[in-house]
Amino acid sequence: MRNIRLCVEYDGTEYCGWQRQENGLSIQQRIEEAIGRMTGVQSRVIGSGRTDAGVHAVGQVANFHTDSRLEERSFLMGLNSLLPPDIAVRGVREVDPSFHARFDAKSKMYLYRICNRPVRPALERRFAWFIWEPLDLEKIAESLDLFRGTHDFSSFCSTHADSEDHVRTILDIAVVKQERDTIRISMEADGFLRYMARTIVGTLVEIGRGKRCLDEVNEILAAKDRKRAGLTAPPQGLFLQEVKYE
Amino acid sequence: MRNIRLCVEYDGTEYCGWQRQENGLSIQQRIEEAIGRMTGVQSRVIGSGRTDAGVHAVGQVANFHTDSRLEERSFLMGLNSLLPPDIAVRGVREVDPSFHARFDAKSKMYLYRICNRPVRPALERRFAWFIWEPLDLEKIAESLDLFRGTHDFSSFCSTHADSEDHVRTILDIAVVKQERDTIRISMEADGFLRYMARTIVGTLVEIGRGKRCLDEVNEILAAKDRKRAGLTAPPQGLFLQEVKYE
Repeated sequence: MRNIRLCVEYDGTEYCGWQRQENGLSIQQRIEEAIGRMTGVQSRVIGSGRTDAGVHAVGQVANFHTDSRLEERSFLMGLNSLLPPDIAVRGVREVDPSFHARFDAKSKMYLYRICNRPVRPALERRFAWFIWEPLDLEKIAESLDLFRGTHDFSSFCSTHADSEDHVRTILDIAVVKQERDTIRISMEADGFLRYMARTIVGTLVEIGRGKRCLDEVNEILAAKDRKRAGLTAPPQGLFLQEVKYE
Repeated sequence: MRNIRLCVEYDGTEYCGWQRQENGLSIQQRIEEAIGRMTGVQSRVIGSGRTDAGVHAVGQVANFHTDSRLEERSFLMGLNSLLPPDIAVRGVREVDPSFHARFDAKSKMYLYRICNRPVRPALERRFAWFIWEPLDLEKIAESLDLFRGTHDFSSFCSTHADSEDHVRTILDIAVVKQERDTIRISMEADGFLRYMARTIVGTLVEIGRGKRCLDEVNEILAAKDRKRAGLTAPPQGLFLQEVKYE
């Protein structure tokens, strides 16, 4: 069987998330349906990982196995004509039969966008977290070093996280201010636990608000207790930017 | 009577444009309704100019007269709580009774966004014109000088333009490439005729596609004939960025 790798972009606003669910439409289901219509056979699509309801992707990676002889370009054009406007396939490539989008992922990059200004945004309402209190960007930037590296992120993930091992390595984390009051927090890690990216952002925002001091980050990490960290930032600011493989 | 100036941001996707119309919901109508609910009196809102159906604004300027004694901040908070999520008031300021958002405008700045890549976008679908053919940015940049300055823009406006005088001055026009395959064309002029910004973009895109050469721009301008210019670029890529006053 052939193994086809997809790079997928989506606006997650209308979906219950990447992964198929009983109640609610998922991106995975939409893609599986489109492949089924092209090949005549139901294929299971393996994503690099879940994204939650309302979270977006610029470069989600997935793969599926098929006996279809369709060329890469035919899949690309066909899927994009069958998929709804809020899901687009950016690339299609036939890969080694052993490639597995989830197990082979070496790291993931997420971006979180905050709209920091006195009044709510109209244009960015689906793609940023609106915070009216001015955030202290320098304080946020100073605290980033405390997250970098290998830690047990039990304090920064859902109590219903899938994995028992909560040790992850943050390879890179940065904050920049962009035109029009947008703050962008980017992070790369060898893996993200459920809600980890959003809980880190929620905690950084409390630091930027002056509600927490820098010293607390180490304490929160050491506590391994979700109740200690900041709130979970809302989903609409989060984008899965890239998944890296060897 | 007091004269209140508003700075308004909107996602134009769901509207028939800025201006009130018989059939279709306009941004002007939404704002007038919100003011009416706050003051108990219907007020007419004067915009700096129309934006067409589907066109967005980051900084549309408008004003209205009222006997209400509400403070600027109360208008700001009140209007933003009454307006739908795709319209936001960014600023409210009491101004001289003589201020007129349309007649006093000295220049306007528009931004046009193009998504230039092989496959259609999911995230940018409402905020950019998707063009799959690679555009030659250098050729576009070279042609900009031909638009700059004072010209009769009859070839670059709707045949149903409101004004009889089609002479306008382009103060600035620039093109830049941004991350993720986005091309941004910005222009400032002392005024824009109906469809003028979009017809200039449509013509620049034909130059970037190699379908027209630079020399043609002067010919098109001299012809004063709408049929000579390129097609009208679609509305969803256009943003009214700023309106300047003295």
